[in-house]
Amino acid sequence: MTGKVFLIGAGPGDPELMTLRALRMLKEADVVVYDRLVSDEIMELCPEGAELIAVGKCPKNHLVPQDRINEILWEQAAMGRKVARLKGGDPMIFGRGSEEAAYLMDRNIEIEYAPGITAAQGASCSTGVPLTHRGLATGVQYVTGHRQADKVLDLDWKRLADPDTTLVVYMGVANIGQIAVGLMTEGLKPSTPVMAISRATAANEERMVSTLGTIAQDCRDAGLKPPTLFIIGKVVSLYASKPQDLPVEAVSANG
Amino acid sequence: MTGKVFLIGAGPGDPELMTLRALRMLKEADVVVYDRLVSDEIMELCPEGAELIAVGKCPKNHLVPQDRINEILWEQAAMGRKVARLKGGDPMIFGRGSEEAAYLMDRNIEIEYAPGITAAQGASCSTGVPLTHRGLATGVQYVTGHRQADKVLDLDWKRLADPDTTLVVYMGVANIGQIAVGLMTEGLKPSTPVMAISRATAANEERMVSTLGTIAQDCRDAGLKPPTLFIIGKVVSLYASKPQDLPVEAVSANG
Ligand SMILES: C[S@@+](CC[C@H](N)C(=O)[O-])C[C@H]1O[C@@H](n2cnc3c(N)ncnc32)[C@H](O)[C@@H]1O
Ligand SMILES: C[S@@+](CC[C@H](N)C(=O)[O-])C[C@H]1O[C@@H](n2cnc3c(N)ncnc32)[C@H](O)[C@@H]1O
Repeated sequence: MTGKVFLIGAGPGDPELMTLRALRMLKEADVVVYDRLVSDEIMELCPEGAELIAVGKCPKNHLVPQDRINEILWEQAAMGRKVARLKGGDPMIFGRGSEEAAYLMDRNIEIEYAPGITAAQGASCSTGVPLTHRGLATGVQYVTGHRQADKVLDLDWKRLADPDTTLVVYMGVANIGQIAVGLMTEGLKPSTPVMAISRATAANEERMVSTLGTIAQDCRDAGLKPPTLFIIGKVVSLYASKPQDLPVEAVSANG
Repeated sequence: MTGKVFLIGAGPGDPELMTLRALRMLKEADVVVYDRLVSDEIMELCPEGAELIAVGKCPKNHLVPQDRINEILWEQAAMGRKVARLKGGDPMIFGRGSEEAAYLMDRNIEIEYAPGITAAQGASCSTGVPLTHRGLATGVQYVTGHRQADKVLDLDWKRLADPDTTLVVYMGVANIGQIAVGLMTEGLKPSTPVMAISRATAANEERMVSTLGTIAQDCRDAGLKPPTLFIIGKVVSLYASKPQDLPVEAVSANG
């Protein structure tokens, strides 16, 4: 009797943003293998008695390498256990869910997916800034601002610099200055609105509204705590059209 | 005492893919204003006694105009009712949630959002085709293939034709031939894999794997029923690496 692996998107942080399926699969698990992006409130939903294995951070603050994560999932499932692989956001968006799935399928381990609200959607619904909007953005694009050690950030600025598309940058804090310059060099105006959101949908969410021309400096000044996401484009102009509707912290974070 | 409007993403079809928040808000509603994209199974979750107002289709098969939808939401909330505005997928992605929000905020109606699993994510998790994947897609882009009556499809083919990004086309069935030609003219290979998914995550989901060169003809032949989404890019090559793991209908729909 072999077990199976549930590849579960836990959403951006607020447990209420989990899907019913994600919660059901989590509740069925014998063991939960989880990332550091998964919030404490969600970890509290793990079934009593389930073994918890953290792979997002080792005690000494190192990530468990992906190869080892794959092995852990396999070992646990091969023991006949139901394994909940709990990830932040959606497993199929910058989540490496499909890498784990390929490894497990090669070893005949059954897998099932639960999609999750990705960080961009959480940020959008919590701030009221849409990802598409008639007249402002005909589409939306998710890119990663992360670059591998010793490599340059290899983004196609010409392709990304479209004033009529919303650009969402995941994992971009370290390189936001370079990203802003790249986009402006290819024609986006320095006045293009940018919103940075940290820990979207969590109780300690922070937001900062800025522009392409000033975002790098503003980020340094604000010292935003991770995880942080950037939404770039005209849709950000819809933010806080009525500041009185927003929580006070949000408005002050804005200044 | 004024009411409020919940702008709710109901997800792609399977009720288990609703978020806990979406379900909670729906259960609180006095009246449910819903789109045709919302599945019957989800409509069954509406609270007993709630008034149901369909705006996706009139009896004679016409859409209720957006202006009238806005008014309905306002009228209902102004009566002091809790209004669930139930949309397919996510309200902030090709969902016009932010247009309705702007109208309501102008009239001092309180709104709250529940994000939803967008169709691309539903399709991804139900087929195992990821939206990003190391070495295959560094990002993902959602565009609409819809064009307004009497206008040409105004997409920036050069910008969209990136072999290293996943392109997801919403509302694209009528124009998929033109889209494929546009992308190939700007350099995408005719062999670029394409997957068409209809009614993703619903019991009667259908999938078809094709290529940019053949998708238009294959679509005509298959007569896919709406709603249909296209996923274009190398990630589609991960589909059905193990066809035995897929439901039989899926494999046959593939031929
Ligand atoms: C490795 S990616 C994982 C993305 C995840 N799979 C998803 O779909 O949201 C990590 C990045 O996601 C973004 N992120 C995740 N959760 C977030 C949150 N609650 N608020 C803001 N950004 C978040 C940040 O950009 C972070 O660097
Ligand atoms: C007006 S858009 C609404 C999109 C929705 N707000 C979302 O986030 O999924 C309608 C289009 O979404 C896509 N779509 C919605 N639900 C779908 C499903 N279950 N399967 C495939 N495509 C779907 C189709 O391309 C359809 O033409």
